[in-house]
Amino acid sequence: MPVVEFNPGGIRVDVEKGSTLLQAIQKAGLPLASYCGGLGACGKCKVVVKEGWGNLSSLTKSELKLLDKRSLEENTRLACQARIEGEYVSIYIPSESMITSAGRSIAAVVLSDDVYPLNPVVKKIHIKLPKPTLEDNRPDLERLRDALIELGYLPPGQDLQVPIEILRELPTILRNSDWDVTAVMYENELIALEPGDTTSLSYGVAVDIGTSKIIVELVNLNTGESVGRESVENPQLVYGADVVSRIMYAEKNNENLVKLQRLAASAINTLIRKITERNRIKHEYIYEVVIVGNTVMHHVFYGIHPGFIARSPYVPVVSRALNYKAEKVGLEINQQGYVSSLPVLRGFVGADAIADLLATQMHKRKELILVIDIGTNTEVLLGNSEIILAASAPSGPAFEGAHITHGMRAVPGAIGSVKINGLDIEYETIGGLKPSGICGTGLIDTIAELHRNGIINSQGKFSNVDHPRLIRDKDTYKFILVTAEESATGTNIYITPRDIESILLAKAAVRAAWIILSRKLGIQPWEIYKVYVSGSFGAKLNVDNAIKIGLLPNIEKDKVVFIGESSIVGAKIFLKSSDARREISEVVNRKIKYVELSIDPEFRDVYYQSIYLNS
Amino acid sequence: MPVVEFNPGGIRVDVEKGSTLLQAIQKAGLPLASYCGGLGACGKCKVVVKEGWGNLSSLTKSELKLLDKRSLEENTRLACQARIEGEYVSIYIPSESMITSAGRSIAAVVLSDDVYPLNPVVKKIHIKLPKPTLEDNRPDLERLRDALIELGYLPPGQDLQVPIEILRELPTILRNSDWDVTAVMYENELIALEPGDTTSLSYGVAVDIGTSKIIVELVNLNTGESVGRESVENPQLVYGADVVSRIMYAEKNNENLVKLQRLAASAINTLIRKITERNRIKHEYIYEVVIVGNTVMHHVFYGIHPGFIARSPYVPVVSRALNYKAEKVGLEINQQGYVSSLPVLRGFVGADAIADLLATQMHKRKELILVIDIGTNTEVLLGNSEIILAASAPSGPAFEGAHITHGMRAVPGAIGSVKINGLDIEYETIGGLKPSGICGTGLIDTIAELHRNGIINSQGKFSNVDHPRLIRDKDTYKFILVTAEESATGTNIYITPRDIESILLAKAAVRAAWIILSRKLGIQPWEIYKVYVSGSFGAKLNVDNAIKIGLLPNIEKDKVVFIGESSIVGAKIFLKSSDARREISEVVNRKIKYVELSIDPEFRDVYYQSIYLNS
Repeated sequence: MPVVEFNPGGIRVDVEKGSTLLQAIQKAGLPLASYCGGLGACGKCKVVVKEGWGNLSSLTKSELKLLDKRSLEENTRLACQARIEGEYVSIYIPSESMITSAGRSIAAVVLSDDVYPLNPVVKKIHIKLPKPTLEDNRPDLERLRDALIELGYLPPGQDLQVPIEILRELPTILRNSDWDVTAVMYENELIALEPGDTTSLSYGVAVDIGTSKIIVELVNLNTGESVGRESVENPQLVYGADVVSRIMYAEKNNENLVKLQRLAASAINTLIRKITERNRIKHEYIYEVVIVGNTVMHHVFYGIHPGFIARSPYVPVVSRALNYKAEKVGLEINQQGYVSSLPVLRGFVGADAIADLLATQMHKRKELILVIDIGTNTEVLLGNSEIILAASAPSGPAFEGAHITHGMRAVPGAIGSVKINGLDIEYETIGGLKPSGICGTGLIDTIAELHRNGIINSQGKFSNVDHPRLIRDKDTYKFILVTAEESATGTNIYITPRDIESILLAKAAVRAAWIILSRKLGIQPWEIYKVYVSGSFGAKLNVDNAIKIGLLPNIEKDKVVFIGESSIVGAKIFLKSSDARREISEVVNRKIKYVELSIDPEFRDVYYQSIYLNS
Repeated sequence: MPVVEFNPGGIRVDVEKGSTLLQAIQKAGLPLASYCGGLGACGKCKVVVKEGWGNLSSLTKSELKLLDKRSLEENTRLACQARIEGEYVSIYIPSESMITSAGRSIAAVVLSDDVYPLNPVVKKIHIKLPKPTLEDNRPDLERLRDALIELGYLPPGQDLQVPIEILRELPTILRNSDWDVTAVMYENELIALEPGDTTSLSYGVAVDIGTSKIIVELVNLNTGESVGRESVENPQLVYGADVVSRIMYAEKNNENLVKLQRLAASAINTLIRKITERNRIKHEYIYEVVIVGNTVMHHVFYGIHPGFIARSPYVPVVSRALNYKAEKVGLEINQQGYVSSLPVLRGFVGADAIADLLATQMHKRKELILVIDIGTNTEVLLGNSEIILAASAPSGPAFEGAHITHGMRAVPGAIGSVKINGLDIEYETIGGLKPSGICGTGLIDTIAELHRNGIINSQGKFSNVDHPRLIRDKDTYKFILVTAEESATGTNIYITPRDIESILLAKAAVRAAWIILSRKLGIQPWEIYKVYVSGSFGAKLNVDNAIKIGLLPNIEKDKVVFIGESSIVGAKIFLKSSDARREISEVVNRKIKYVELSIDPEFRDVYYQSIYLNS
């Protein structure tokens, strides 16, 4: 049998004549990059032939297309294309062709919210007005308007909009301040008039209303810098852990909806107060709150009936960016301040997904970008500056730990990563606490590691193996990750075949979504330039394991970016930049195409094919 | 001496050689029209020479200019130009040259509010929406927006604005009505969504908030017709009869201002309810209220501080047309309905004056139009489609009966017209009741008649005449119009020198205003094509007497139109026509020039010259 030797390392393997170099490398267990599955399409499995060039099949058309002249001169081949025809070949695998540091978890990257020049909608303008005289007896408002036009803050001929409450105070403020005032403009509306020069005091708030967690960040609108950040468990949780149970509660009667609305508003007020008290900022200097959240959280926050989102054909009440006086939803900021929200797309592609889009800037990239926001409904966006397809995958709450025997949300004490090497089981918990359960990233690791160790087969079923942690229990099994002595709960933490099935079904939904979207764009998943994964299913994500179980497409590990809580970043961008607002509204109106997976003719087939671990 | 004979009638007068025909006619006491005072400029004193053409001076340049060919062929002359040079002339005075029915009072004309095609801002559109499906799962609001765009009620690409309260009801209303609804649009805002087809139910309200009287008219916005009209004494009267005392009350503290605001709103609500109950109209089908009133009434109605209007430099808080949710001022119409007001110009040229402008359509006329709205501050507008000058004359409340011994407002029982022929005194009261006092028109008549009868001289002082009704009282006089036996009060109703002085000062202010405005336009008052007189100082106006005392310019009587309560007409036009709104805002921004009389260098002189009766 022919022999192939690999350098560096000197590993030698025997292979059948006619085998590809890729097969030889896989037999040697080396982590060679190969994303197109040996089709000669991705060009990633480059190897350099050190000896035995003549013992390999001739260059294929794919290689002539994908390898540049210099590579060819350096005796480069694509491992999937070169077949072994002689007795000996010596191969060098360059580091860029290796999947490096396989198995290491990556922590969430915080995307920048400074991708646009600072240009909030709120503008504060210090003005010294000429006092009225008999020769110049323009009315107060028109005097102010003329000054704003002169300073370029209002288009000529434009009416200065003014709430009646401000109009009522206007003459007194102007005269008490001796006509030296700061006008606070929100587009063409005068939302406040403050005596003297208060331009240095201008704040806004970004809010991510997650189903389980509310995050609030206070931003200085003069500098764009974050003043502080606070978060709290969503107090609506007592009325249901997931969006569907919240909807059921809200639908019972209107008082329930009002109650949920007030809970959210009140939690946000409390978080804002925490930050303002610490930083001694008056609420009257906060002029805008920007909200993101999934469509149900979004509707409930505004007090809008969310019931029809959950029923076919799953229509929300409104999709465009909303903009109301903050008092209309009970937020305690400046009396005339605004609450705005990013647009939503459909019932299960919400403002949080649009925030992800803004945070990743995928709508401005030439390269193909995939955004996967994992949750009970996993939002999947695929596209670039040309077109973006959006879909919602019905993944269910498994990645959030729900309906999993020892599943839990990604909070301290949750097992976030797992390594199994034979009898040796290692794990890490969030915050380094004693483990109380397993969160999404831990579940992904567990399944990938059980499969790698041959403990479960590609259908996710426990193989007939002997492992001290694999316990038969009546007519089922349990695989014990943490024993009662080690756990925080004093009981074993284990995983069952049913748990594994739930996770595989969840990942099948996500996988089918990006496969369908890729097909609709006419691309192969490995052509995707970058994958952004978000969601609160863990603090760190083992990308290799996520790829191995098929949750993510098989692309180079460093092209996967785990962005954790990214919606708040999108909210901050929206808060800080009028340009981003215009842009995103344009994108939602013209560039995004929503794909309804439930009526896609291919979805069901792809979904079932996607359940297994070799899919 | 030469003889001039007049036909028809056969009156003969002897005149000096060299006299003009006009002098002869005046000697005969015939009411010939002559507005330029014999300058040969107005061309009104046309007469036809029947015999003795050769006994007259030759045609002057004025005559050649002002008489057309046909008139000349028919032996027409201008009486002021033709001098008598021979012994006999026979003259025919055509009826168009006669001031007819001199001394008869004219009742107020109601101007038409149908000068624009019916096009209210509020539009009701019946829509049957396609039901959502998985293939077409647009959100509710966007589904509605698309339908409105398709039907032409929303510009493509325009966001459909929607109050949060409507958004909250939207999904339920759409589904309960089986997607068959009526959308109520106010510009680009959806202000109501009603199940089924309710397009036939659409109403608006026009309101004139006078200092002493509030008038409300309910209009069917589908037909433009008035459904009903109600009025009531302004309940703010208990806090002061005139605007200055109202301001003083409002300024004391903010509660007072709020009280005045609520009194007005509550009175309007009551009047609306009277009409709707009688006509069985639900308040939810009233979508807009249009308000006019002087600047103080306007500000107080909105709860805006009116204090600075009364102090130099007399600036209002705002001048442009306002547009707020009706609930902001406590009006009980559709929950999301609007209250709008016409623009004001300055502190004493208010929305009522702009309403008069709209009602008279002076901004569209080629001819010069003078509008005089008589009140405590008399608004004077002079101009045409090119330019309009506006001023406020400080006339004081005399024409409204205030500070006049037996003065009263123009309500039933007020003496509205007076005729004195020697010892014979005739009068009419409003409503034909027993007299209780004298209103503005009665005061004008009294002064003109006292002067005509030689009882007062041109300075308004009682002459040394013997008249049984002229009573010496201590060191002053009283002229008794109605004796105690005839009056409703059981006391004499009389006029004093002080009363006469008050009226003369009031008319001087008005007269000086239109003289100054005429000078600024470079025209002579008799060139004015039409004078519209409004104000609530009487039910009928004796135009000749108003001209005689110098309140109005000396033009043909039939060119004076008494329009009584005209502001409500302007309010109705504004309510019924979006086009009128755009037009009036354009006129206020570009065509009207405000003249501040108090700093006009000529005003004081003209004012003092205008006090006397021969002025």
